[in-house]
Amino acid sequence: MTSVAWSGPKLRVAVLGATGSVGQRFVSLLADHPWFEIGALCASERSAGHPYADAVRWMQTTALPPEIGSLEIRPTESASANDCVVAFSALDATIATPVEQEFARAGHVVVSNAGAYRMHPRVPLVVPEVNADHLELLAGQEFGDGAIVTNPNCSTIGLVLPLKPLVDRFGLLRVHVVTLQALSGAGIEGIPSMQMVDNIVPFISGEEEKIESETRKILGRVTGGEVTEHEVMIGAQCNRVPVLDGHTACVSVELGDRPPREDLLDAWAEFVPDTAALALPSAPKRVIHVLEGDDVPQPRLHRDTDGGMAALVGRVRPCPLLSWKFVTLSHNTLRGAAGGALLLGELAVARGVVPGWSAGGKTAP
Amino acid sequence: MTSVAWSGPKLRVAVLGATGSVGQRFVSLLADHPWFEIGALCASERSAGHPYADAVRWMQTTALPPEIGSLEIRPTESASANDCVVAFSALDATIATPVEQEFARAGHVVVSNAGAYRMHPRVPLVVPEVNADHLELLAGQEFGDGAIVTNPNCSTIGLVLPLKPLVDRFGLLRVHVVTLQALSGAGIEGIPSMQMVDNIVPFISGEEEKIESETRKILGRVTGGEVTEHEVMIGAQCNRVPVLDGHTACVSVELGDRPPREDLLDAWAEFVPDTAALALPSAPKRVIHVLEGDDVPQPRLHRDTDGGMAALVGRVRPCPLLSWKFVTLSHNTLRGAAGGALLLGELAVARGVVPGWSAGGKTAP
Amino acid sequence: MTSVAWSGPKLRVAVLGATGSVGQRFVSLLADHPWFEIGALCASERSAGHPYADAVRWMQTTALPPEIGSLEIRPTESASANDCVVAFSALDATIATPVEQEFARAGHVVVSNAGAYRMHPRVPLVVPEVNADHLELLAGQEFGDGAIVTNPNCSTIGLVLPLKPLVDRFGLLRVHVVTLQALSGAGIEGIPSMQMVDNIVPFISGEEEKIESETRKILGRVTGGEVTEHEVMIGAQCNRVPVLDGHTACVSVELGDRPPREDLLDAWAEFVPDTAALALPSAPKRVIHVLEGDDVPQPRLHRDTDGGMAALVGRVRPCPLLSWKFVTLSHNTLRGAAGGALLLGELAVARGVVPGWSAGGKTAP
Amino acid sequence: MTSVAWSGPKLRVAVLGATGSVGQRFVSLLADHPWFEIGALCASERSAGHPYADAVRWMQTTALPPEIGSLEIRPTESASANDCVVAFSALDATIATPVEQEFARAGHVVVSNAGAYRMHPRVPLVVPEVNADHLELLAGQEFGDGAIVTNPNCSTIGLVLPLKPLVDRFGLLRVHVVTLQALSGAGIEGIPSMQMVDNIVPFISGEEEKIESETRKILGRVTGGEVTEHEVMIGAQCNRVPVLDGHTACVSVELGDRPPREDLLDAWAEFVPDTAALALPSAPKRVIHVLEGDDVPQPRLHRDTDGGMAALVGRVRPCPLLSWKFVTLSHNTLRGAAGGALLLGELAVARGVVPGWSAGGKTAP
Repeated sequence: MTSVAWSGPKLRVAVLGATGSVGQRFVSLLADHPWFEIGALCASERSAGHPYADAVRWMQTTALPPEIGSLEIRPTESASANDCVVAFSALDATIATPVEQEFARAGHVVVSNAGAYRMHPRVPLVVPEVNADHLELLAGQEFGDGAIVTNPNCSTIGLVLPLKPLVDRFGLLRVHVVTLQALSGAGIEGIPSMQMVDNIVPFISGEEEKIESETRKILGRVTGGEVTEHEVMIGAQCNRVPVLDGHTACVSVELGDRPPREDLLDAWAEFVPDTAALALPSAPKRVIHVLEGDDVPQPRLHRDTDGGMAALVGRVRPCPLLSWKFVTLSHNTLRGAAGGALLLGELAVARGVVPGWSAGGKTAP
Repeated sequence: MTSVAWSGPKLRVAVLGATGSVGQRFVSLLADHPWFEIGALCASERSAGHPYADAVRWMQTTALPPEIGSLEIRPTESASANDCVVAFSALDATIATPVEQEFARAGHVVVSNAGAYRMHPRVPLVVPEVNADHLELLAGQEFGDGAIVTNPNCSTIGLVLPLKPLVDRFGLLRVHVVTLQALSGAGIEGIPSMQMVDNIVPFISGEEEKIESETRKILGRVTGGEVTEHEVMIGAQCNRVPVLDGHTACVSVELGDRPPREDLLDAWAEFVPDTAALALPSAPKRVIHVLEGDDVPQPRLHRDTDGGMAALVGRVRPCPLLSWKFVTLSHNTLRGAAGGALLLGELAVARGVVPGWSAGGKTAP
Repeated sequence: MTSVAWSGPKLRVAVLGATGSVGQRFVSLLADHPWFEIGALCASERSAGHPYADAVRWMQTTALPPEIGSLEIRPTESASANDCVVAFSALDATIATPVEQEFARAGHVVVSNAGAYRMHPRVPLVVPEVNADHLELLAGQEFGDGAIVTNPNCSTIGLVLPLKPLVDRFGLLRVHVVTLQALSGAGIEGIPSMQMVDNIVPFISGEEEKIESETRKILGRVTGGEVTEHEVMIGAQCNRVPVLDGHTACVSVELGDRPPREDLLDAWAEFVPDTAALALPSAPKRVIHVLEGDDVPQPRLHRDTDGGMAALVGRVRPCPLLSWKFVTLSHNTLRGAAGGALLLGELAVARGVVPGWSAGGKTAP
Repeated sequence: MTSVAWSGPKLRVAVLGATGSVGQRFVSLLADHPWFEIGALCASERSAGHPYADAVRWMQTTALPPEIGSLEIRPTESASANDCVVAFSALDATIATPVEQEFARAGHVVVSNAGAYRMHPRVPLVVPEVNADHLELLAGQEFGDGAIVTNPNCSTIGLVLPLKPLVDRFGLLRVHVVTLQALSGAGIEGIPSMQMVDNIVPFISGEEEKIESETRKILGRVTGGEVTEHEVMIGAQCNRVPVLDGHTACVSVELGDRPPREDLLDAWAEFVPDTAALALPSAPKRVIHVLEGDDVPQPRLHRDTDGGMAALVGRVRPCPLLSWKFVTLSHNTLRGAAGGALLLGELAVARGVVPGWSAGGKTAP
């Protein structure tokens, strides 16, 4: 299963919110991407006009490539990205709504990691391996010549990936989930260190609601240009813990059937997403890794599995209340943010959402 | 509500396992206790014969009192504690079974923080504010002239305290609990630091089973010298996080009635345990503190409330699956171990379990 | 050595910058102070008009007393504190210069923890146990009817305390110091948690310069209303480490004589500051504690010694380059900030700097 | 500058102490090495006979390759490694002395990361870029047909790398160094987590002495089969901090000349080690990276530079006491242990120390 070789020029993309925690991940991943290249780095007015290297507080463990560091940051408006067809958005919730719409109306395909349009009825909320078919909602979008597609919240992505094979095979009635979420999800300046030494915080603003609503949309069915949400009942509790990257979740599920443990493991082991045939460059080799051992997955040891794009599952055991309980882990700024959005951008290209481009390269003059 | 004044000599007690994490807490708390004084510090053969100060790796933030530091550590056998009536045990699970029995058969009242006898049908497993009446099981004990009473596992204590007022007022059908537990629960050498920087571990050996079984025993009813366990269904998932002291738990409960939120808050606010009239010296002024604010309780900020003997509750909100969800916090080596055991020892004295002693002091010549 | 008993009303004081990390420590310490009571809490415009409890992100492990929490925050101007004679300042460097002067000109005695006036030739920079006599600089001050006295930088205080007995007894030629400083020194929002997990930062802006210059002023001699700086040569390197409170410093000293190790230990053990006779309420029982053991002092275990007001010393051993090396530790927001400033305020009262008040209480009508 | 291509079979090597922190790094690095392949994994009696995957507590962030995980662990004796010419030793200090000698006497070239033979007058203590010529000491060794070469202590390596260009160009009189060392240096179980939350420990047993003595040997001169130690005076103070990997050191140097800052930077920038021409596979592209910026290097961000084999330097500024001060950082289990030893093993092969092998592959039948 290999992808069609890309030929000709790369597709130029803009990164919105390029200096933040997720923006930096976009920049890292795009530095060496087979299909895309950075055409514009947009950030706040304070940063605009300065070289990226000067404006960013670079927190990645790989050095910032000098040719990217020297790019001048542009203002966050579509005019900054005239030569880019696609815009990856890592914008703050506070400004994403007008800005993303402005980019779309100017003709850009916006692939957004922000929450602004996730629950909009005409905007696809997509995890490529789970609900690529939701892209058909785009037909009904009315944001001018462009389009907006959205990547779910980081903790939702980490949850729906292991749920998908269970939904398909057994049906899913109820989910109880408690998360232990990493610091990077709150942005570089998000959580003061005095709060994260000898401490955890049992609260993340808006997170529980996002998990509960987004999961139902993602697992829902699109018919006639509308999403019918999945009826699963979800109860979420979210905590912040002193981990740099990698959201852990303790999950209990009530399935339609009461399958034996072996069947669950098979469901995960045999899961092949519809998008596998597309061989998208950012897709993990295996979507779900079930780990053996009592005390795994652990964020520091396993978050980088398959380039940080896989979901890890462990500790599968009976739940006295629902059917089964397990622990899942995923990398929140790779799989759950920049990497997931990039994969979604690749899917959009492969599915013909980006005018003039396909999985083989440029198609139109 | 003031306690009877203690008069005459203090009751001499032994501490078993005195050099460990919980043992050190016993020593700290006993250094200035109004009823008890340290008569013997027992530890492993390696330590026996050495001054306590030399054998212990003192990890408390208050200095070790020199008069205790100079005590010679004795071997862990009842002969070491001939002049002590009560023995507080912080023994390792591996040796607690024979040692505690040997002490009891030699006539000691053993107040144990170890797991060895917790589920024994003739051994009371007691949280004083919850099920002080279970002490009547002692009538049927057959460990010679002595007795064994046990303190539950740290995470169980933190759970049953906020559950008790709900059980009493509304009935309790189901509990889902996910814990974020502190390092001290694993002992001083328990968790390597390399596992607790930028990481959590989603597993604590045997902990989930203890929560599930101990809670049912504690909330059960004693009749005719036997415990009938409570029928509540409990599902637990346990995690280790980089916090020094203080176990946090995310709890969902299904109550018999579906009371409004106000009634829950009232149940906690109005809770007065049966033991309140005894005014035991280690009892918190208020057993359950419900905190206002979005992001509390937090272990570092709130674990020391009421001398580390209170349970903190916050974030009370509806659960889409069961009835209500909330966060609870308690100090695992104070309330959940040494402090809880001391309170239990005080209860035992007040209830006449220790021959020759009462809440007022020595009663027999 | 007991202090004169305080009689009559307490001296009302204002706290400037009351919501920050050091401001909270002032509030905690003043909540139960034998001489002072809080008369005004001043903070930024954003907070003014709100109850203190609502405006502050309370990070102390003791609960905020409700009667203080309900105080309305006032604007940071002298008119807010008309009924207060003394103002303790925890202001940001950015605004301290004009604000502290305005308070002084309005007649207040400003006891400042800010850096603004520390190196001003007419402003005493005082560690009470080290250079209480520097208060005589006040005679030459020209800030209207009031006065400004300053508390040194936190890391300087922790250094000069153990140096003082060495200077007095042996003379001091050179000091090399490398600090490992706590997070609280940078304020509650100062250091993002992503920078302090699995990391240290080998830089604190302006800190090395402060240590080098402040130490020379404090150890200097006041004659004729002027300070002659001490000629000791000091080289400092400063690091931020993931510790909540407590600055550790690795120190090497070259002394005038080359005393044997015993003499150093004696110098510290026998050190009695000039201010001892005043028995100031915030003074530690013993200023310098020399700890035995290979691996001490450690911040978490020892920072709270003597109410967090002592300096701890350990690991005294020969230095191949200078004379002796040792490790010292002090609590940066207690001894090094709010506690130190309070002690300085007490000294000012005892020395008659505050008109109408003495160590025995109010003296004038 | 490319290395001679390796041809023919790889050189089989044994790893002694294969399950520990450094042993795991050896295994990781050897899994994909161009010259070497794992022939034997030796560990304690408790582990011997078990598959490596079962015996090891794998703490690396890359998965253990299954073909290595299935290797059966062998006893730590030369008979276990008959088919290996070279043995990389990560043995505990407690057993390294007899075991390494036994391997050497059986004909192995032992490349040791242990301290046992570092200061032996006939054993080369080598950092390849600094003193490759010390290998000539081997001529005088009398450990039978084999040989022992040693890799310095992790903190010494991180210090001598940036010192080397200064020694060569300016002469070096005195060095003052304070380290902030990572947890992995103490082994996986070395430091309990309760000691490394909200804390640092200002002590590492034997470390200061190692830095002081090893540095003088490494910078020394070999003539007539003997090392004359360098006369530099070194004072070291060592601290443990909660960082996973990467030792930071605050260094002050007194140079023979008092060069301007530019000349220091040039010395580092222009440094090309004698071994560069050998193009050893584990050598970093650049030995010393001088970083711009106020607050760098930082362990988490920079330790992995050049595969974790480079030394990072930052904050070069005048020292009031000596000549210049700066901060240096190196990866303690890569550059400072397994990676450094591997590089030394490669040097030994390239210099003809391993009979029958050269930098091009097998030379003898």
